[in-house]
Amino acid sequence: MRQEDPVAHHADANASPGTDVPAMRRAIELAARGLGSTSPNPVVGCVITDPSGAVVGEGWHERAGGPHAEVHALRRAGAAARGGTAYVTLEPCNHTGRTGPCAQALIEAGVTRVLYAVADPNPQASGGGATLRAAGISAEGGLLRAEAEAGNAAWLTSVRLGRPHVTWKYAATLDGRSAAADGTSRWITSAESRADVHRLRAECDAVLVGGGTLREDDPHLAVRGVEGATQPLRIALDTHAGLLPTARILDDAAPTLIVVGEDADTRHLPGVEVLRMPLHDGHIGVHDLLGRLYARGVRSLFLEGGPTLAGTFLRAGAVDRVIGYLAPALLGAGPAALAGAGVDTISDAVRLDLTEAVRVGPDLRITAVPTVRTPLKEH
Amino acid sequence: MRQEDPVAHHADANASPGTDVPAMRRAIELAARGLGSTSPNPVVGCVITDPSGAVVGEGWHERAGGPHAEVHALRRAGAAARGGTAYVTLEPCNHTGRTGPCAQALIEAGVTRVLYAVADPNPQASGGGATLRAAGISAEGGLLRAEAEAGNAAWLTSVRLGRPHVTWKYAATLDGRSAAADGTSRWITSAESRADVHRLRAECDAVLVGGGTLREDDPHLAVRGVEGATQPLRIALDTHAGLLPTARILDDAAPTLIVVGEDADTRHLPGVEVLRMPLHDGHIGVHDLLGRLYARGVRSLFLEGGPTLAGTFLRAGAVDRVIGYLAPALLGAGPAALAGAGVDTISDAVRLDLTEAVRVGPDLRITAVPTVRTPLKEH
Repeated sequence: MRQEDPVAHHADANASPGTDVPAMRRAIELAARGLGSTSPNPVVGCVITDPSGAVVGEGWHERAGGPHAEVHALRRAGAAARGGTAYVTLEPCNHTGRTGPCAQALIEAGVTRVLYAVADPNPQASGGGATLRAAGISAEGGLLRAEAEAGNAAWLTSVRLGRPHVTWKYAATLDGRSAAADGTSRWITSAESRADVHRLRAECDAVLVGGGTLREDDPHLAVRGVEGATQPLRIALDTHAGLLPTARILDDAAPTLIVVGEDADTRHLPGVEVLRMPLHDGHIGVHDLLGRLYARGVRSLFLEGGPTLAGTFLRAGAVDRVIGYLAPALLGAGPAALAGAGVDTISDAVRLDLTEAVRVGPDLRITAVPTVRTPLKEH
Repeated sequence: MRQEDPVAHHADANASPGTDVPAMRRAIELAARGLGSTSPNPVVGCVITDPSGAVVGEGWHERAGGPHAEVHALRRAGAAARGGTAYVTLEPCNHTGRTGPCAQALIEAGVTRVLYAVADPNPQASGGGATLRAAGISAEGGLLRAEAEAGNAAWLTSVRLGRPHVTWKYAATLDGRSAAADGTSRWITSAESRADVHRLRAECDAVLVGGGTLREDDPHLAVRGVEGATQPLRIALDTHAGLLPTARILDDAAPTLIVVGEDADTRHLPGVEVLRMPLHDGHIGVHDLLGRLYARGVRSLFLEGGPTLAGTFLRAGAVDRVIGYLAPALLGAGPAALAGAGVDTISDAVRLDLTEAVRVGPDLRITAVPTVRTPLKEH
């Protein structure tokens, strides 16, 4: 069911079939290990081979503030990197941040060839490729670019748009119901699907729910059952601060942020971190909120409901990925998974491209991305 | 995405790996060519090999009243069948109907071994295996049984339950809407999906729609674009005979049957075949109707909506297969694909097993069958 990526095939054709493609693919695999713990940095993987093509070092960016992937891999390779090749999923950085510039580290290690998949879109960091070439190193971008971009989709989207990448996740029956007529919804999907949701939460920087879901479901939203997970920021969009102090989201399993209207009374929530936002017609603007979250380092947001909040984000063109867990069940009544997306007629439907459909236990998990990106609205 | 069938694997293990499994699989493929044109008979395929294992004849039951699969294959094999093996998807018949008994034909052709996948459940036809064995022929059932049963699911269900096998087909967005808020629905799914629906219609004996769909959509329901297709019987469930004489379903592209309540006035529909049914609380009973359709030879019924008719069939436990075309689109408003299935709480959800999920153009086609069959109600 996975779609083949023609760009990746094109890049394959230019690569040395023996070593380059498998090495870069391995680097992409390594990069994915950082998902959820590197923000606001991207995930990056690196593989170093010696002059014979043997792998002598591997590394990935493990957490924000920690060493970059190249540094990890070079440490493992030691002297064996001399005369070898570095495969990096993202163009090596050229700036001195919390860690030294990676381009310089590669030069000092004596690497003679650097292949990177994706050019760094971040203006503060770009230029590593040029620095390498100026030092006489063969440095080239584009190998398995599409694969590597897919692995870094959230970070790349956030850098390009100046707001977090947003994934809307829903669970529904085949007839699109997220609960039965009497409101019961435990459990529509299987234990396997619920575990899968925890894995996806752990890959995101923040999880967002709206006031309706908070009141009706009292969700906990922390990650459970994922070894070594960094807990995402739990965000409650609660315009009128209706949250009860006993809400499960306020426990200490993960950090929590309550987003309220500028004049909301939050005296019943002492000690809770509160973000106050201006109201427009009584509502907090989606792009206002996303801008504020980006400013505090949120690069990927996992939108967990309910139907109206999802509709508001879709209407604002602020959903970059849809992940649906479809249970092989039928209800024929009950609330729909999505409401109020602002679509009245079929020609205005939000059209997506299906990128994946896989079984998760008895359920089907579908992933889709908007076919045409709605232009980013003004903040 | 296809589920592996443990039964089929088990049968594989007992078979001669060289010839038996591929030959039976080929017979199953051949059988499928008859789907839609053999009713009220099953689909059957047959492969004949000579004593060396070489295929010398192939055949399938092409249409009701025509020769059985074995007869076609034996004709092609001629004298080469002597001493060979016959692979048949269904136990050879033992009765003399419109064509002679196949067991006798196999004996006369000098075949010395017969493998069949599924024992014939039809009491009028069973006994072919015993007849063959009595004639000294090695005859054994069960090879690739599950695969062959899947290929004959409609016919086997209808024989076992005494009513047509029912497939409910729907098309919806990912959020379960079958139309937008303003009622527009052309087109939710792609041209590829619509062509696929014609193929499935052609495999069924009859297509059924309810009065609401007739009035709102004026569907045509004939098969288009499928070479050599036998047109299914178009059935309109129209309790009060509200159908207009100009309805597209009444053209001569395919036969049409209007099912009405016993006292409906049908004088505005001269020349239209009408089936009058008793009313219970003003409604025609689902199992009443299915019994009448079975009696006139309908073995497979394709239920094409709308949501309320589907709900009625589900509530009656009369849906054997669900096929959903899911368009990668979101609406957030508009009518649901299913209504009135009689489910109020999550524990009463109609649970299914997903048997297939495949891409059809940009859409996803899912196939599911009820997890636990609802007991057949009294007619």
